[in-house]
Amino acid sequence: MLRTEDRPAQHPQIVGQAIEVHRWVRQARAAGKTIGLVPTMGALHAGHLSLVAASCQQCDATIVTIFVNPTQFIGGEDFEAYPRNVPQDLKLLGQHEVDLVFIPTQDEMYPAGSSTLVLPPDVAQPLEGLCRPNHFHGVATIVLKLFHMIPADVAYFGQKDYQQTLVVRQMVADLRISMRIAVCPTVRESDGLALSSRNAYLNEHQREQALALSHSLQVASQLVQTGERESASIISKMRQVFADAGVAKIDYIALVDPDTLAEVRQVNAPTLATVAAHVGDARLIDNQLLEP
Amino acid sequence: MLRTEDRPAQHPQIVGQAIEVHRWVRQARAAGKTIGLVPTMGALHAGHLSLVAASCQQCDATIVTIFVNPTQFIGGEDFEAYPRNVPQDLKLLGQHEVDLVFIPTQDEMYPAGSSTLVLPPDVAQPLEGLCRPNHFHGVATIVLKLFHMIPADVAYFGQKDYQQTLVVRQMVADLRISMRIAVCPTVRESDGLALSSRNAYLNEHQREQALALSHSLQVASQLVQTGERESASIISKMRQVFADAGVAKIDYIALVDPDTLAEVRQVNAPTLATVAAHVGDARLIDNQLLEP
Repeated sequence: MLRTEDRPAQHPQIVGQAIEVHRWVRQARAAGKTIGLVPTMGALHAGHLSLVAASCQQCDATIVTIFVNPTQFIGGEDFEAYPRNVPQDLKLLGQHEVDLVFIPTQDEMYPAGSSTLVLPPDVAQPLEGLCRPNHFHGVATIVLKLFHMIPADVAYFGQKDYQQTLVVRQMVADLRISMRIAVCPTVRESDGLALSSRNAYLNEHQREQALALSHSLQVASQLVQTGERESASIISKMRQVFADAGVAKIDYIALVDPDTLAEVRQVNAPTLATVAAHVGDARLIDNQLLEP
Repeated sequence: MLRTEDRPAQHPQIVGQAIEVHRWVRQARAAGKTIGLVPTMGALHAGHLSLVAASCQQCDATIVTIFVNPTQFIGGEDFEAYPRNVPQDLKLLGQHEVDLVFIPTQDEMYPAGSSTLVLPPDVAQPLEGLCRPNHFHGVATIVLKLFHMIPADVAYFGQKDYQQTLVVRQMVADLRISMRIAVCPTVRESDGLALSSRNAYLNEHQREQALALSHSLQVASQLVQTGERESASIISKMRQVFADAGVAKIDYIALVDPDTLAEVRQVNAPTLATVAAHVGDARLIDNQLLEP
């Protein structure tokens, strides 16, 4: 890794074809470089950039991909409306030591006639899997394609999409993929709101309401710190936070095993508190590990 | 590639752990060697050995895998009875320039808790896909695992499993896997019977009956050579071959597009004749390209 001051200021190379990025990675690895991969759907925020920074710090070269993947949106979701701003993304990435940005077209990722899918591991079934059927089919398939196109050493994911990190890790183990999965902490606004590209959908009032997610997790954490162990009691108080904020459309409020995502009745071991709710047009998720 | 006479007689190295074979392949490729992979379920015959010979001729190093994959057998099939003879397999492979034989355990290929599957491409649906539901889920999943464990340059498959070669090729294209798929011609006994590990199930009488498969394909080929174009007429005469041989349990007799496996009504372009039938305890398949 070169330190920032050692490198000339430069824009990352932008590549649209898988064959180009694959050749680049092969050559870089043959030259002994370690490669970090940061897969994104663009509309980059400080959460994504923390993954980029981790990769730049830990690897010799960093590749960021920008692709809004249609197959992980389910019917009626916001695929069309999902924020896209490649010029701004490139400007942000130019402030980091990113070597290559891969921005494929739909045809490049899903050529006509392509029909192979990944059936994700069992851990894809609860929570998001129930609310967004086949969402993780799309995630697992696109991630596997990217891993084949870009055979990096490490791929970086954010803890905000906690279940996604479990799905990807289990897929990597099950399919014996030679890739290390690194998970970086959720990045939050100063008032606690987890960064999300979908926060752009919120108006001022909804932005206030959206704090219910992180506040409910703080309430859960405080309850556990002060000795509460009953999941039902904790969830009830979390639910009250949403009610007080006027957020009615809750997909789930759950306390689960951090490895299996099975619901737990008592918080006697590290437990994941995880929430999903709709605020205005935005479906938001958040999670926090509770440590009794 | 070294010619046989340049090489000391030697037994191939035998490896049971994915991590070992993966390391071996990485080192060999870093040293500039091209690698050929021949995935098998063991019980090797001259058909398998033709794949091995092709790999030894075309690549610097050849890896053969032996694994009877449970997930590609459907309920009630012959997973338990499937012939296994590793000592004999190794003896046969010792007569070729095989560098490494990978013989994993069930746990190595399917560790406890592994649940990710490949949903194979659409071309998996007709023919074998109808007769053996989820067979190609198992094939696609194990082949993908082997490809990840053994990132070779070329993988060799036999044309006898024609639909399998289409499924693997489409999966490789869809998932953007960096592996060339080579398909070698079906190897036959002198009387036309296609070599199959399952031929071992046949007694003398059934061995005679089993000729119905290759004979029916010869009949189809002759009919097309002499100007017949109507699929219904050709299939009717093929069916008569099975009837004459006393083979009643036919899974399919079909004339299909060689790329899509869609049924064709008239043989006006290269067309695949493909048959599947049960003879005694053996379910046998065979196919032949008809060129009008």
